[in-house]
Amino acid sequence: MPYEFRATRRVEFSDTDMAGIMHYSNFFRFMETAEHGFYRSLGFSVVMAETDPRLGWPRVHAECDYRKPLRFEDLVEIQLLVKERRTKSISYTFRFWKLNEDPRVEVARGLLTIVCVSHQPDGKMTSVPIPPEIAEKIEIAPATLLE
Amino acid sequence: MPYEFRATRRVEFSDTDMAGIMHYSNFFRFMETAEHGFYRSLGFSVVMAETDPRLGWPRVHAECDYRKPLRFEDLVEIQLLVKERRTKSISYTFRFWKLNEDPRVEVARGLLTIVCVSHQPDGKMTSVPIPPEIAEKIEIAPATLLE
Amino acid sequence: MPYEFRATRRVEFSDTDMAGIMHYSNFFRFMETAEHGFYRSLGFSVVMAETDPRLGWPRVHAECDYRKPLRFEDLVEIQLLVKERRTKSISYTFRFWKLNEDPRVEVARGLLTIVCVSHQPDGKMTSVPIPPEIAEKIEIAPATLLE
Amino acid sequence: MPYEFRATRRVEFSDTDMAGIMHYSNFFRFMETAEHGFYRSLGFSVVMAETDPRLGWPRVHAECDYRKPLRFEDLVEIQLLVKERRTKSISYTFRFWKLNEDPRVEVARGLLTIVCVSHQPDGKMTSVPIPPEIAEKIEIAPATLLE
Repeated sequence: MPYEFRATRRVEFSDTDMAGIMHYSNFFRFMETAEHGFYRSLGFSVVMAETDPRLGWPRVHAECDYRKPLRFEDLVEIQLLVKERRTKSISYTFRFWKLNEDPRVEVARGLLTIVCVSHQPDGKMTSVPIPPEIAEKIEIAPATLLE
Repeated sequence: MPYEFRATRRVEFSDTDMAGIMHYSNFFRFMETAEHGFYRSLGFSVVMAETDPRLGWPRVHAECDYRKPLRFEDLVEIQLLVKERRTKSISYTFRFWKLNEDPRVEVARGLLTIVCVSHQPDGKMTSVPIPPEIAEKIEIAPATLLE
Repeated sequence: MPYEFRATRRVEFSDTDMAGIMHYSNFFRFMETAEHGFYRSLGFSVVMAETDPRLGWPRVHAECDYRKPLRFEDLVEIQLLVKERRTKSISYTFRFWKLNEDPRVEVARGLLTIVCVSHQPDGKMTSVPIPPEIAEKIEIAPATLLE
Repeated sequence: MPYEFRATRRVEFSDTDMAGIMHYSNFFRFMETAEHGFYRSLGFSVVMAETDPRLGWPRVHAECDYRKPLRFEDLVEIQLLVKERRTKSISYTFRFWKLNEDPRVEVARGLLTIVCVSHQPDGKMTSVPIPPEIAEKIEIAPATLLE
Protein backbone atom coordinates (compact mmCIF):
# COMPACT_ATOMS: atom_id res chain seq x y z
CA MET A 1 0.00 0.00 0.00
CA PRO A 2 1.84 3.11 -1.19
CA TYR A 3 0.13 5.34 1.41
CA GLU A 4 1.23 3.46 4.52
CA PHE A 5 4.29 1.96 6.16
CA ARG A 6 4.85 0.33 9.52
CA ALA A 7 8.17 0.28 11.35
CA THR A 8 8.73 -1.37 14.72
CA ARG A 9 11.21 -0.21 17.34
CA ARG A 10 12.00 -1.20 20.88
CA VAL A 11 12.62 1.76 23.20
CA GLU A 12 16.27 1.66 24.20
CA PHE A 13 17.96 2.79 27.37
CA SER A 14 19.59 5.70 25.54
CA ASP A 15 16.13 6.80 24.32
CA THR A 16 14.96 7.38 27.91
CA ASP A 17 15.55 10.37 30.17
CA MET A 18 15.66 10.79 33.93
CA ALA A 19 11.84 10.94 34.04
CA GLY A 20 12.03 7.24 33.14
CA ILE A 21 10.28 7.68 29.80
CA MET A 22 11.32 8.14 26.18
CA HIS A 23 12.61 11.68 25.68
CA TYR A 24 10.11 13.69 23.65
CA SER A 25 12.66 14.58 20.96
CA ASN A 26 13.17 10.91 20.13
CA PHE A 27 9.66 10.55 18.74
CA PHE A 28 10.93 12.70 15.87
CA ARG A 29 13.83 10.33 15.28
CA PHE A 30 11.36 7.42 15.23
CA MET A 31 9.16 9.24 12.68
CA GLU A 32 12.14 9.50 10.37
CA THR A 33 12.84 5.79 10.78
CA ALA A 34 9.38 5.05 9.41
CA GLU A 35 9.66 7.69 6.68
CA HIS A 36 12.96 6.34 5.37
CA GLY A 37 11.69 2.77 5.58
CA PHE A 38 8.68 3.88 3.51
CA TYR A 39 11.00 5.17 0.76
CA ARG A 40 12.99 1.94 0.79
CA SER A 41 9.72 0.00 0.48
CA LEU A 42 9.00 2.04 -2.68
CA GLY A 43 12.42 1.23 -4.11
CA PHE A 44 14.39 4.39 -3.47
CA SER A 45 16.35 6.11 -0.68
CA VAL A 46 15.93 9.51 0.90
CA VAL A 47 19.59 10.07 0.00
CA MET A 48 19.68 10.61 -3.74
CA ALA A 49 23.36 10.97 -4.43
CA GLU A 50 23.06 10.02 -8.07
CA THR A 51 20.56 12.62 -9.30
CA ASP A 52 22.01 15.72 -10.98
CA PRO A 53 21.50 18.22 -9.48
CA ARG A 54 21.27 16.34 -6.20
CA LEU A 55 17.77 16.24 -4.64
CA GLY A 56 17.10 16.61 -0.93
CA TRP A 57 14.11 16.40 1.38
CA PRO A 58 14.42 18.98 4.16
CA ARG A 59 11.75 19.08 6.84
CA VAL A 60 9.81 22.35 7.02
CA HIS A 61 7.35 21.43 9.76
CA ALA A 62 7.26 18.80 12.48
CA GLU A 63 4.90 18.27 15.35
CA CYS A 64 3.84 15.66 17.88
CA ASP A 65 1.00 15.20 20.37
CA TYR A 66 1.93 13.03 23.32
CA ARG A 67 -0.86 11.06 25.00
CA LYS A 68 0.92 8.42 27.03
CA PRO A 69 4.59 7.85 27.79
CA LEU A 70 6.77 5.14 26.27
CA ARG A 71 9.11 3.31 28.61
CA PHE A 72 12.32 1.27 28.30
CA GLU A 73 11.84 -1.96 26.33
CA ASP A 74 8.35 -0.96 25.17
CA LEU A 75 7.72 -2.20 21.65
CA VAL A 76 6.31 0.54 19.47
CA GLU A 77 4.93 0.48 15.95
CA ILE A 78 5.29 3.70 14.01
CA GLN A 79 2.53 3.78 11.41
CA LEU A 80 3.26 6.26 8.61
CA LEU A 81 0.28 7.50 6.61
CA VAL A 82 0.47 9.87 3.64
CA LYS A 83 -1.71 12.80 4.61
CA GLU A 84 -1.16 15.18 1.70
CA ARG A 85 0.85 15.27 -1.50
CA ARG A 86 1.38 18.56 -3.22
CA THR A 87 3.58 19.36 -6.23
CA LYS A 88 6.68 20.09 -4.17
CA SER A 89 5.90 18.73 -0.72
CA ILE A 90 4.44 15.79 1.20
CA SER A 91 2.83 15.62 4.64
CA TYR A 92 2.88 12.46 6.71
CA THR A 93 0.87 11.52 9.77
CA PHE A 94 2.55 9.15 12.22
CA ARG A 95 0.61 7.07 14.71
CA PHE A 96 2.65 5.54 17.53
CA TRP A 97 1.22 2.26 18.79
CA LYS A 98 2.48 0.64 21.97
CA LEU A 99 2.38 -3.04 21.06
CA ASN A 100 3.14 -4.59 24.44
CA GLU A 101 -0.30 -3.74 25.77
CA ASP A 102 -3.48 -5.56 24.88
CA PRO A 103 -5.28 -4.02 23.08
CA ARG A 104 -2.49 -1.92 21.63
CA VAL A 105 -2.68 1.78 22.53
CA GLU A 106 -1.98 4.86 20.43
CA VAL A 107 0.48 6.77 22.59
CA ALA A 108 1.37 9.68 20.30
CA ARG A 109 0.57 11.20 16.95
CA GLY A 110 3.01 13.11 14.79
CA LEU A 111 3.03 15.17 11.63
CA LEU A 112 5.90 15.90 9.26
CA THR A 113 5.98 18.08 6.15
CA ILE A 114 8.92 17.69 3.81
CA VAL A 115 9.83 19.62 0.69
CA CYS A 116 11.67 18.39 -2.39
CA VAL A 117 14.67 20.61 -3.09
CA SER A 118 17.48 20.73 -5.58
CA HIS A 119 20.99 21.46 -4.28
CA GLN A 120 22.57 24.18 -6.43
CA PRO A 121 26.32 24.24 -7.08
CA ASP A 122 26.62 27.34 -4.83
CA GLY A 123 25.18 25.39 -1.87
CA LYS A 124 21.73 26.99 -2.04
CA MET A 125 18.57 24.87 -2.12
CA THR A 126 15.58 25.56 -4.40
CA SER A 127 12.25 23.81 -3.98
CA VAL A 128 11.40 21.75 -7.06
CA PRO A 129 8.53 19.50 -8.13
CA ILE A 130 8.75 15.96 -6.77
CA PRO A 131 10.09 13.78 -9.63
CA PRO A 132 7.13 12.01 -11.33
CA GLU A 133 8.62 8.54 -10.83
CA ILE A 134 8.42 9.17 -7.07
CA ALA A 135 5.20 11.21 -6.97
CA GLU A 136 3.25 8.57 -8.88
CA LYS A 137 4.20 5.93 -6.32
CA ILE A 138 2.83 7.86 -3.35
CA GLU A 139 -0.92 7.77 -2.64
CA ILE A 140 -3.02 9.61 -0.09
CA ALA A 141 -4.18 7.47 2.81
CA PRO A 142 -7.95 6.96 3.22
CA ALA A 143 -9.39 9.55 5.60
CA THR A 144 -10.63 6.83 7.95
CA LEU A 145 -7.03 5.90 8.82
CA LEU A 146 -6.20 9.48 9.72
CA GLU A 147 -8.98 10.08 12.23
CA MET B 1 11.46 39.60 32.55
CA PRO B 2 9.43 36.59 33.69
CA TYR B 3 7.98 36.03 30.21
CA GLU B 4 11.26 35.61 28.32
CA PHE B 5 14.57 33.79 28.50
CA ARG B 6 17.48 33.61 26.10
CA ALA B 7 19.90 30.69 25.89
CA THR B 8 22.84 30.52 23.51
CA ARG B 9 24.25 27.35 21.98
CA ARG B 10 26.88 26.56 19.42
CA VAL B 11 25.87 23.81 16.99
CA GLU B 12 28.11 20.84 17.66
CA PHE B 13 29.40 18.18 15.33
CA SER B 14 27.17 15.58 16.99
CA ASP B 15 24.14 17.84 16.38
CA THR B 16 24.63 17.62 12.61
CA ASP B 17 23.56 14.90 10.19
CA MET B 18 24.85 13.74 6.83
CA ALA B 19 22.96 16.56 5.11
CA GLY B 20 25.51 18.82 6.78
CA ILE B 21 22.94 20.63 8.91
CA MET B 22 21.58 20.35 12.42
CA HIS B 23 19.26 17.33 12.63
CA TYR B 24 15.66 18.50 12.94
CA SER B 25 15.07 16.58 16.17
CA ASN B 26 17.79 18.56 17.92
CA PHE B 27 15.80 21.79 17.76
CA PHE B 28 13.55 20.15 20.36
CA ARG B 29 16.54 19.46 22.61
CA PHE B 30 17.56 23.11 22.26
CA MET B 31 14.02 24.27 23.18
CA GLU B 32 14.29 22.34 26.40
CA THR B 33 17.66 23.92 27.15
CA ALA B 34 15.98 27.33 27.06
CA GLU B 35 12.95 26.13 29.02
CA HIS B 36 15.03 24.68 31.85
CA GLY B 37 17.25 27.76 31.91
CA PHE B 38 14.08 29.85 32.23
CA TYR B 39 13.06 27.89 35.34
CA ARG B 40 16.51 28.28 36.86
CA SER B 41 16.30 32.04 36.19
CA LEU B 42 13.06 32.04 38.23
CA GLY B 43 14.72 30.21 41.10
CA PHE B 44 13.51 26.67 40.65
CA SER B 45 14.31 23.51 38.66
CA VAL B 46 12.15 21.46 36.33
CA VAL B 47 13.09 18.50 38.53
CA MET B 48 11.13 18.89 41.77
CA ALA B 49 12.34 15.98 43.83
CA GLU B 50 11.41 17.57 47.14
CA THR B 51 7.68 18.22 46.62
CA ASP B 52 5.28 15.59 48.01
CA PRO B 53 3.73 14.18 45.92
CA ARG B 54 6.45 14.77 43.35
CA LEU B 55 5.49 17.17 40.54
CA GLY B 56 6.46 16.69 36.91
CA TRP B 57 6.13 18.63 33.68
CA PRO B 58 5.47 16.24 30.77
CA ARG B 59 5.23 17.67 27.29
CA VAL B 60 1.85 17.15 25.59
CA HIS B 61 2.53 19.01 22.36
CA ALA B 62 5.65 20.07 20.49
CA GLU B 63 6.14 21.58 17.07
CA CYS B 64 8.69 23.39 14.98
CA ASP B 65 8.73 25.32 11.70
CA TYR B 66 12.08 25.26 9.95
CA ARG B 67 12.96 28.22 7.73
CA LYS B 68 16.72 27.98 7.26
CA PRO B 69 19.24 25.34 8.26
CA LEU B 70 21.73 25.61 11.10
CA ARG B 71 25.25 24.40 10.42
CA PHE B 72 28.23 23.23 12.47
CA GLU B 73 29.66 25.96 14.72
CA ASP B 74 26.73 28.29 14.07
CA LEU B 75 25.92 30.29 17.17
CA VAL B 76 22.20 30.19 17.91
CA GLU B 77 20.11 32.07 20.43
CA ILE B 78 16.98 30.27 21.60
CA GLN B 79 14.52 32.92 22.72
CA LEU B 80 11.78 31.49 24.96
CA LEU B 81 8.55 33.48 25.21
CA VAL B 82 5.58 32.55 27.38
CA LYS B 83 2.68 32.26 24.98
CA GLU B 84 -0.11 31.05 27.26
CA ARG B 85 -0.55 30.15 30.90
CA ARG B 86 -3.54 28.14 31.93
CA THR B 87 -4.38 26.62 35.33
CA LYS B 88 -2.59 23.34 34.65
CA SER B 89 -0.46 24.01 31.58
CA ILE B 90 1.91 26.48 29.92
CA SER B 91 2.70 27.07 26.24
CA TYR B 92 6.02 28.48 25.12
CA THR B 93 7.07 29.92 21.78
CA PHE B 94 10.72 29.51 20.83
CA ARG B 95 12.43 31.71 18.28
CA PHE B 96 15.78 30.44 16.99
CA TRP B 97 18.16 33.24 15.99
CA LYS B 98 21.35 32.54 14.07
CA LEU B 99 23.73 35.05 15.62
CA ASN B 100 26.72 34.64 13.30
CA GLU B 101 24.97 36.47 10.50
CA ASP B 102 24.47 40.22 10.35
CA PRO B 103 21.67 41.06 10.86
CA ARG B 104 20.77 37.97 12.84
CA VAL B 105 18.22 35.71 11.18
CA GLU B 106 15.29 33.79 12.65
CA VAL B 107 15.91 30.28 11.35
CA ALA B 108 13.14 28.36 13.11
CA ARG B 109 10.18 28.80 15.41
CA GLY B 110 8.97 26.23 17.91
CA LEU B 111 6.08 25.67 20.28
CA LEU B 112 5.89 23.54 23.39
CA THR B 113 2.95 22.84 25.69
CA ILE B 114 3.68 21.32 29.07
CA VAL B 115 1.32 20.15 31.79
CA CYS B 116 1.86 20.13 35.53
CA VAL B 117 1.29 16.63 36.91
CA SER B 118 1.50 14.94 40.26
CA HIS B 119 3.16 11.51 40.43
CA GLN B 120 0.92 9.15 42.40
CA PRO B 121 2.40 6.35 44.52
CA ASP B 122 1.11 3.79 41.98
CA GLY B 123 3.15 5.43 39.21
CA LYS B 124 0.20 7.16 37.58
CA MET B 125 0.29 10.87 36.76
CA THR B 126 -2.65 13.27 37.37
CA SER B 127 -2.72 16.79 35.99
CA VAL B 128 -2.83 19.35 38.81
CA PRO B 129 -2.91 23.16 39.05
CA ILE B 130 0.50 24.80 38.71
CA PRO B 131 1.62 25.68 42.26
CA PRO B 132 0.86 29.38 42.91
CA GLU B 133 4.49 30.20 43.84
CA ILE B 134 5.47 29.17 40.32
CA ALA B 135 2.39 30.42 38.43
CA GLU B 136 2.69 33.91 39.87
CA LYS B 137 6.25 34.20 38.59
CA ILE B 138 5.33 33.46 34.98
CA GLU B 139 3.90 36.26 32.81
CA ILE B 140 2.55 36.22 29.27
CA ALA B 141 4.85 37.75 26.69
CA PRO B 142 3.62 40.87 24.88
CA ALA B 143 1.93 39.91 21.62
CA THR B 144 4.41 41.99 19.61
CA LEU B 145 7.21 39.59 20.57
CA LEU B 146 5.23 36.61 19.33
CA GLU B 147 4.50 37.84 15.83
CA MET C 1 24.83 -19.72 23.87
CA PRO C 2 25.06 -17.74 27.13
CA TYR C 3 28.36 -16.10 26.10
CA GLU C 4 27.17 -14.46 22.89
CA PHE C 5 24.34 -12.36 21.50
CA ARG C 6 23.79 -10.80 18.10
CA ALA C 7 21.69 -7.68 17.50
CA THR C 8 21.10 -6.12 14.11
CA ARG C 9 20.60 -2.45 13.42
CA ARG C 10 20.26 -0.30 10.36
CA VAL C 11 22.19 2.98 10.54
CA GLU C 12 19.64 5.78 10.64
CA PHE C 13 19.84 9.31 9.33
CA SER C 14 19.94 10.66 12.88
CA ASP C 15 22.92 8.36 13.61
CA THR C 16 25.04 10.12 10.98
CA ASP C 17 26.99 13.36 11.23
CA MET C 18 28.10 15.93 8.68
CA ALA C 19 31.08 13.74 7.75
CA GLY C 20 28.46 11.43 6.22
CA ILE C 21 29.22 8.56 8.58
CA MET C 22 27.82 7.23 11.84
CA HIS C 23 28.89 9.52 14.68
CA TYR C 24 31.49 7.78 16.82
CA SER C 25 29.46 8.15 20.03
CA ASN C 26 26.62 6.10 18.56
CA PHE C 27 28.71 2.93 18.52
CA PHE C 28 28.35 3.04 22.31
CA ARG C 29 24.56 3.26 22.04
CA PHE C 30 24.64 0.25 19.71
CA MET C 31 26.79 -1.73 22.19
CA GLU C 32 24.13 -1.19 24.82
CA THR C 33 21.43 -2.38 22.42
CA ALA C 34 23.23 -5.70 22.17
CA GLU C 35 23.96 -5.85 25.89
CA HIS C 36 20.33 -5.32 26.88
CA GLY C 37 19.15 -7.78 24.24
CA PHE C 38 21.59 -10.30 25.73
CA TYR C 39 19.95 -9.91 29.15
CA ARG C 40 16.48 -10.31 27.67
CA SER C 41 17.68 -13.48 25.92
CA LEU C 42 18.67 -14.81 29.37
CA GLY C 43 15.27 -14.00 30.81
CA PHE C 44 15.89 -10.79 32.71
CA SER C 45 16.13 -7.04 32.15
CA VAL C 46 18.94 -4.61 32.91
CA VAL C 47 16.31 -2.64 34.84
CA MET C 48 15.64 -4.56 38.02
CA ALA C 49 12.91 -2.57 39.67
CA GLU C 50 11.67 -5.44 41.76
CA THR C 51 14.85 -6.41 43.66
CA ASP C 52 15.23 -4.96 47.17
CA PRO C 53 17.50 -3.09 47.42
CA ARG C 54 17.33 -2.21 43.76
CA LEU C 55 20.29 -3.44 41.66
CA GLY C 56 21.94 -1.42 38.91
CA TRP C 57 24.64 -1.94 36.31
CA PRO C 58 26.68 1.25 35.83
CA ARG C 59 29.40 1.29 33.23
CA VAL C 60 32.91 1.87 34.58
CA HIS C 61 34.87 1.55 31.36
CA ALA C 62 34.00 1.83 27.68
CA GLU C 63 36.17 1.85 24.60
CA CYS C 64 35.99 1.42 20.87
CA ASP C 65 38.44 0.96 18.00
CA TYR C 66 37.15 2.24 14.67
CA ARG C 67 38.46 0.54 11.53
CA LYS C 68 36.00 1.54 8.82
CA PRO C 69 33.08 3.95 8.79
CA LEU C 70 29.42 2.98 8.85
CA ARG C 71 27.11 4.92 6.54
CA PHE C 72 23.38 5.65 6.31
CA GLU C 73 21.28 2.53 5.75
CA ASP C 74 24.21 0.19 6.36
CA LEU C 75 23.07 -2.95 8.11
CA VAL C 76 25.27 -3.76 11.08
CA GLU C 77 25.40 -6.76 13.35
CA ILE C 78 26.62 -6.09 16.86
CA GLN C 79 28.09 -9.31 18.19
CA LEU C 80 28.35 -9.32 21.99
CA LEU C 81 30.87 -11.72 23.53
CA VAL C 82 31.44 -12.22 27.26
CA LYS C 83 35.11 -11.48 27.78
CA GLU C 84 35.44 -11.71 31.54
CA ARG C 85 33.19 -12.39 34.51
CA ARG C 86 34.38 -11.42 37.96
CA THR C 87 32.47 -11.51 41.25
CA LYS C 88 31.10 -7.99 40.90
CA SER C 89 31.72 -7.07 37.27
CA ILE C 90 31.48 -8.28 33.68
CA SER C 91 33.44 -7.26 30.58
CA TYR C 92 31.98 -7.57 27.11
CA THR C 93 33.67 -7.41 23.73
CA PHE C 94 31.57 -6.09 20.85
CA ARG C 95 32.38 -6.83 17.23
CA PHE C 96 30.60 -4.64 14.67
CA TRP C 97 29.98 -6.41 11.37
CA LYS C 98 28.82 -4.53 8.30
CA LEU C 99 26.43 -7.02 6.73
CA ASN C 100 25.75 -5.27 3.42
CA GLU C 101 29.19 -6.13 2.08
CA ASP C 102 30.22 -9.54 0.88
CA PRO C 103 32.06 -10.97 2.72
CA ARG C 104 30.90 -9.06 5.78
CA VAL C 105 33.53 -6.78 7.31
CA GLU C 106 34.38 -6.07 10.94
CA VAL C 107 34.24 -2.28 11.07
CA ALA C 108 34.78 -1.66 14.77
CA ARG C 109 35.46 -3.42 18.03
CA GLY C 110 34.28 -2.26 21.45
CA LEU C 111 34.73 -3.11 25.09
CA LEU C 112 32.45 -2.43 28.02
CA THR C 113 32.96 -3.16 31.71
CA ILE C 114 29.93 -2.97 33.97
CA VAL C 115 29.65 -3.36 37.72
CA CYS C 116 26.76 -4.71 39.76
CA VAL C 117 25.69 -2.18 42.38
CA SER C 118 23.03 -1.92 45.02
CA HIS C 119 21.16 1.38 45.36
CA GLN C 120 21.12 2.42 49.02
CA PRO C 121 18.17 4.35 50.48
CA ASP C 122 20.39 7.47 50.72
CA GLY C 123 20.99 7.40 46.95
CA LYS C 124 24.53 5.99 47.21
CA MET C 125 25.60 2.95 45.19
CA THR C 126 27.70 0.08 46.60
CA SER C 127 29.24 -2.58 44.39
CA VAL C 128 27.87 -6.02 45.26
CA PRO C 129 28.37 -9.58 43.98
CA ILE C 130 26.39 -10.40 40.87
CA PRO C 131 23.34 -12.42 42.03
CA PRO C 132 24.05 -16.14 41.50
CA GLU C 133 20.91 -16.69 39.38
CA ILE C 134 22.39 -14.22 36.88
CA ALA C 135 26.06 -15.09 37.25
CA GLU C 136 25.46 -18.77 36.61
CA LYS C 137 23.76 -17.98 33.30
CA ILE C 138 26.71 -16.05 31.91
CA GLU C 139 29.64 -17.94 30.40
CA ILE C 140 32.97 -16.76 29.07
CA ALA C 141 33.25 -16.79 25.29
CA PRO C 142 35.88 -19.12 23.75
CA ALA C 143 39.13 -17.25 23.17
CA THR C 144 38.98 -17.96 19.44
CA LEU C 145 35.92 -15.70 19.11
CA LEU C 146 37.72 -12.83 20.79
CA GLU C 147 40.77 -12.72 18.59
CA MET D 1 48.59 27.12 26.23
CA PRO D 2 48.53 25.06 23.04
CA TYR D 3 48.40 21.78 24.96
CA GLU D 4 45.22 22.42 26.92
CA PHE D 5 41.66 23.63 26.50
CA ARG D 6 38.75 23.86 28.92
CA ALA D 7 35.11 23.74 27.87
CA THR D 8 32.20 24.00 30.29
CA ARG D 9 28.84 22.32 29.86
CA ARG D 10 25.73 21.97 31.97
CA VAL D 11 24.22 18.48 31.88
CA GLU D 12 20.87 18.75 30.13
CA PHE D 13 17.70 16.76 30.60
CA SER D 14 18.20 15.10 27.20
CA ASP D 15 21.71 14.02 28.31
CA THR D 16 20.27 11.92 31.15
CA ASP D 17 18.81 8.43 31.04
CA MET D 18 16.30 6.58 33.18
CA ALA D 19 19.03 5.80 35.73
CA GLY D 20 18.89 9.53 36.48
CA ILE D 21 22.47 10.16 35.35
CA MET D 22 24.18 11.32 32.17
CA HIS D 23 24.13 8.51 29.62
CA TYR D 24 27.62 7.09 29.21
CA SER D 25 27.71 7.72 25.46
CA ASN D 26 27.30 11.46 26.01
CA PHE D 27 30.75 11.76 27.61
CA PHE D 28 32.07 11.13 24.09
CA ARG D 29 29.96 13.98 22.70
CA PHE D 30 31.34 16.23 25.45
CA MET D 31 34.94 15.22 24.59
CA GLU D 32 34.34 16.37 21.04
CA THR D 33 32.96 19.70 22.27
CA ALA D 34 36.27 20.36 24.00
CA GLU D 35 38.31 19.07 21.04
CA HIS D 36 36.56 21.33 18.53
CA GLY D 37 36.78 24.29 20.90
CA PHE D 38 40.53 23.60 21.15
CA TYR D 39 40.88 23.87 17.37
CA ARG D 40 38.90 27.11 17.30
CA SER D 41 41.17 28.47 20.04
CA LEU D 42 44.12 27.73 17.71
CA GLY D 43 42.46 29.57 14.84
CA PHE D 44 41.10 26.74 12.72
CA SER D 45 38.09 24.43 12.51
CA VAL D 46 37.89 20.65 12.49
CA VAL D 47 35.92 21.06 9.26
CA MET D 48 38.43 22.02 6.61
CA ALA D 49 36.28 22.56 3.57
CA GLU D 50 38.77 24.82 1.84
CA THR D 51 41.84 22.55 1.72
CA ASP D 52 42.39 20.62 -1.51
CA PRO D 53 42.16 17.69 -1.21
CA ARG D 54 39.84 18.08 1.76
CA LEU D 55 41.33 16.99 5.10
CA GLY D 56 39.41 15.12 7.77
CA TRP D 57 40.02 13.93 11.31
CA PRO D 58 38.34 10.55 11.88
CA ARG D 59 38.50 9.01 15.32
CA VAL D 60 40.32 5.66 15.46
CA HIS D 61 40.14 5.04 19.19
CA ALA D 62 37.97 6.35 22.01
CA GLU D 63 37.69 5.34 25.62
CA CYS D 64 36.38 6.55 28.93
CA ASP D 65 36.70 5.57 32.58
CA TYR D 66 33.71 6.51 34.70
CA ARG D 67 34.32 7.21 38.38
CA LYS D 68 31.25 9.11 39.52
CA PRO D 69 27.97 9.90 37.79
CA LEU D 70 26.98 13.29 36.42
CA ARG D 71 23.41 14.41 37.05
CA PHE D 72 20.96 16.89 35.53
CA GLU D 73 22.10 20.50 35.84
CA ASP D 74 25.58 19.50 37.03
CA LEU D 75 28.18 21.91 35.70
CA VAL D 76 31.11 20.04 34.18
CA GLU D 77 34.44 21.24 32.90
CA ILE D 78 35.98 19.13 30.17
CA GLN D 79 39.73 19.64 30.32
CA LEU D 80 41.46 18.61 27.08
CA LEU D 81 45.17 17.78 27.32
CA VAL D 82 47.38 16.83 24.38
CA LYS D 83 48.78 13.43 25.31
CA GLU D 84 50.71 12.49 22.18
CA ARG D 85 51.39 13.99 18.79
CA ARG D 86 52.68 11.75 16.05
CA THR D 87 53.21 12.55 12.36
CA LYS D 88 49.72 11.58 11.30
CA SER D 89 47.75 11.35 14.55
CA ILE D 90 47.07 13.03 17.89
CA SER D 91 45.91 11.59 21.20
CA TYR D 92 44.00 13.65 23.72
CA THR D 93 43.27 13.00 27.37
CA PHE D 94 40.03 14.45 28.73
CA ARG D 95 39.46 15.06 32.41
CA PHE D 96 35.85 15.68 33.45
CA TRP D 97 35.54 17.93 36.49
CA LYS D 98 32.23 18.38 38.29
CA LEU D 99 32.35 22.05 39.22
CA ASN D 100 29.30 22.25 41.47
CA GLU D 101 31.04 20.41 44.27
CA ASP D 102 33.67 21.92 46.53
CA PRO D 103 36.41 20.94 45.97
CA ARG D 104 35.69 20.03 42.37
CA VAL D 105 35.82 16.31 41.63
CA GLU D 106 37.21 14.44 38.63
CA VAL D 107 34.27 12.25 37.64
CA ALA D 108 35.60 10.66 34.46
CA ARG D 109 38.67 10.46 32.26
CA GLY D 110 38.62 9.95 28.52
CA LEU D 111 41.03 9.31 25.67
CA LEU D 112 40.64 10.01 21.99
CA THR D 113 43.00 9.25 19.11
CA ILE D 114 42.36 10.99 15.81
CA VAL D 115 44.10 10.61 12.49
CA CYS D 116 44.62 13.20 9.78
CA VAL D 117 43.25 11.94 6.47
CA SER D 118 42.90 13.24 2.97
CA HIS D 119 39.60 12.63 1.16
CA GLN D 120 40.33 11.25 -2.31
CA PRO D 121 38.04 12.04 -5.25
CA ASP D 122 36.82 8.41 -5.22
CA GLY D 123 35.57 8.80 -1.63
CA LYS D 124 38.46 6.87 -0.07
CA MET D 125 40.45 8.31 2.83
CA THR D 126 44.25 8.10 3.11
CA SER D 127 46.12 9.01 6.27
CA VAL D 128 48.48 11.94 5.69
CA PRO D 129 50.92 13.96 7.80
CA ILE D 130 49.28 16.67 9.90
CA PRO D 131 49.87 19.97 8.04
CA PRO D 132 52.85 21.77 9.60
CA GLU D 133 50.87 24.96 10.28
CA ILE D 134 48.63 22.89 12.56
CA ALA D 135 51.23 20.50 13.96
CA GLU D 136 53.49 23.32 15.10
CA LYS D 137 50.68 24.88 17.12
CA ILE D 138 50.01 21.73 19.16
CA GLU D 139 52.25 20.95 22.12
CA ILE D 140 52.37 17.96 24.44
CA ALA D 141 50.93 18.59 27.89
CA PRO D 142 53.34 18.30 30.84
CA ALA D 143 53.21 14.80 32.31
CA THR D 144 52.11 16.15 35.70
CA LEU D 145 48.77 17.24 34.21
CA LEU D 146 48.13 13.77 32.84
CA GLU D 147 48.58 11.82 36.05
